Amino acid sequence: MESPKKLRIALDTMGGDCAPEREVAGAVEALRASREQFEIVLVGDEQTIHHQLALQNAEHLPFTVVHASQVITMADSPTAALKQKKDSSLSVGMHLHKEGKVDACVSAGNTGAVLSAATLILGRIKNVSRPTIGTFIPAEHGTCLLVDAGANVDCRAQHLYEFAVMGNIYVRLLKKKDRPSIALLNVGEEKSKGTEAAQEAHKLLLASSYNFIGNVEGGDILKSKADVVVCDGFVGNIVLKFGESVPSFLKSRLKQFSTKGVINKLAVGMALWPLKASLRDMDPNEEGGVPVLGVNGVTIIGHGSSTVKGIKNMILRAAEVAQSQVNRQIEKALAEKGF
Amino acid sequence: MESPKKLRIALDTMGGDCAPEREVAGAVEALRASREQFEIVLVGDEQTIHHQLALQNAEHLPFTVVHASQVITMADSPTAALKQKKDSSLSVGMHLHKEGKVDACVSAGNTGAVLSAATLILGRIKNVSRPTIGTFIPAEHGTCLLVDAGANVDCRAQHLYEFAVMGNIYVRLLKKKDRPSIALLNVGEEKSKGTEAAQEAHKLLLASSYNFIGNVEGGDILKSKADVVVCDGFVGNIVLKFGESVPSFLKSRLKQFSTKGVINKLAVGMALWPLKASLRDMDPNEEGGVPVLGVNGVTIIGHGSSTVKGIKNMILRAAEVAQSQVNRQIEKALAEKGF
Repeated sequence: MESPKKLRIALDTMGGDCAPEREVAGAVEALRASREQFEIVLVGDEQTIHHQLALQNAEHLPFTVVHASQVITMADSPTAALKQKKDSSLSVGMHLHKEGKVDACVSAGNTGAVLSAATLILGRIKNVSRPTIGTFIPAEHGTCLLVDAGANVDCRAQHLYEFAVMGNIYVRLLKKKDRPSIALLNVGEEKSKGTEAAQEAHKLLLASSYNFIGNVEGGDILKSKADVVVCDGFVGNIVLKFGESVPSFLKSRLKQFSTKGVINKLAVGMALWPLKASLRDMDPNEEGGVPVLGVNGVTIIGHGSSTVKGIKNMILRAAEVAQSQVNRQIEKALAEKGF
Repeated sequence: MESPKKLRIALDTMGGDCAPEREVAGAVEALRASREQFEIVLVGDEQTIHHQLALQNAEHLPFTVVHASQVITMADSPTAALKQKKDSSLSVGMHLHKEGKVDACVSAGNTGAVLSAATLILGRIKNVSRPTIGTFIPAEHGTCLLVDAGANVDCRAQHLYEFAVMGNIYVRLLKKKDRPSIALLNVGEEKSKGTEAAQEAHKLLLASSYNFIGNVEGGDILKSKADVVVCDGFVGNIVLKFGESVPSFLKSRLKQFSTKGVINKLAVGMALWPLKASLRDMDPNEEGGVPVLGVNGVTIIGHGSSTVKGIKNMILRAAEVAQSQVNRQIEKALAEKGF
């Protein structure tokens, strides 16, 4: 019997803030963690990648290296860079995916550029108005998918509705939740609250067959009131970034407190262990990255500052998504409109 | 020589979640803290208030009690309640202010109702399109005024500009900052980022004479990048509530960790002191409440769950604002447009 075709994942090896060192090291770890059940295609400057593989004693591992002569930096304007840098590692990786040579393309590079590349090169899934990115926020009990996390700043009700549909499917399949609870992020629980788009989206979701629990407020996200919290990308991005800044704020506050005396210093020293342990999953490297939902393919965007573990998890997550039915189900759900 | 007229502050004694107990107790503490340099007018059910004063052994203190037969509850719809409950403690207090019988009116009641009462009864300051509420968020170094914190969900550029002007004056006069730094909350630093309103507001602020430092992102608020952070009330309310939920999230996480063994429990026990001490000013009771900016009068809205200390600080802050030039300067600044 022929063994099933191995999954292949392209990694934009030049994307992140510490590329290509961390990218290559993360790819090595992903390969080991998966016991080589999938293949990784390293896209970027060939010579640099081989050098990094040598440094990692990983030249014998079954990597494929695909050369790309250009790099899209964090400072580049997404759409301009995609037009001008046709041979960037991101473009080349995404085209490999488009051509069916790989099953996913992941990058810890310029978020806007990865999103644009996914949308422009892979195209939208049928019935999706706007691809979106969702992000998992650690909450009191498990995590909550915040969608949109920054892809679309101005949204109409239909867009918010579609984000809910896509978020619902992603959480159901990837987090193995049967009927994820879905909520709209708003300034009050009443359906009359918020912007016109929020009020209209409330109606659409209420009429749907989903497990819509109504509006939630900003304070309900961390309370695990819903599995999927829907908002436009302006709000989503701001909440996400605010949340990400909390650990360093705490650290700074504790540091200030510790300078006020020896006992304070001791107390802070002892507080660090339980605090770090309690907040371990607030580290975005645990999730590995945020999925792009609604494109004809599988893309995960890693944090620019991803650690080696972050890169590894980004690749592992992409493999999981590629093996799931996410995209097929999104197309189906939006054809049926969920009503 | 005649001593200057004493400041008089009306307190909606029936507003908060634990009214009137905490309201009366807070008023007693405020009077003591101020060494009776101002007068407090307790508005609400006369009999109940006298009963509370007796319980507090405070009947001899120079309070004035003004009877109001109705109460606007947290569940009431703000505008409907104001129309139907003409004799509510909030309405009566606000009318006392309108008639010049008191210099400020404060309430820890229904935020929407207090805001509506202030706007409808006191009226807008000349040149102000929309009154707003600002809230102080504790940051790494000092606090940051987030404005609008929930009063106006849909905002045009001109509204955002006015929030900046009012926030600037409030921080300058009340926090004694010479030239507060002002920033627009957005999804990126570039002026081309965000919604149309945000992009237009960026232009208006750039052309002004204020200390406008450009856009900041969600992660910059706690980093103390700006003294005044401007946004629409939809975003502001969500960020504020998200931030307020962080301490209870931390507590829940530490509790989960502490159940994993005796050593964990001990470690968490020891972590609580430095943590609480470091986050003391995240307690909204420290600030006492959020100012309503842009109305012809002085109103501070307390948190519904204000403690006695919260009520006390709300009253003390109102006294400070009443003695400042905030409203006159807002009128002047908006007449000049700041350009």
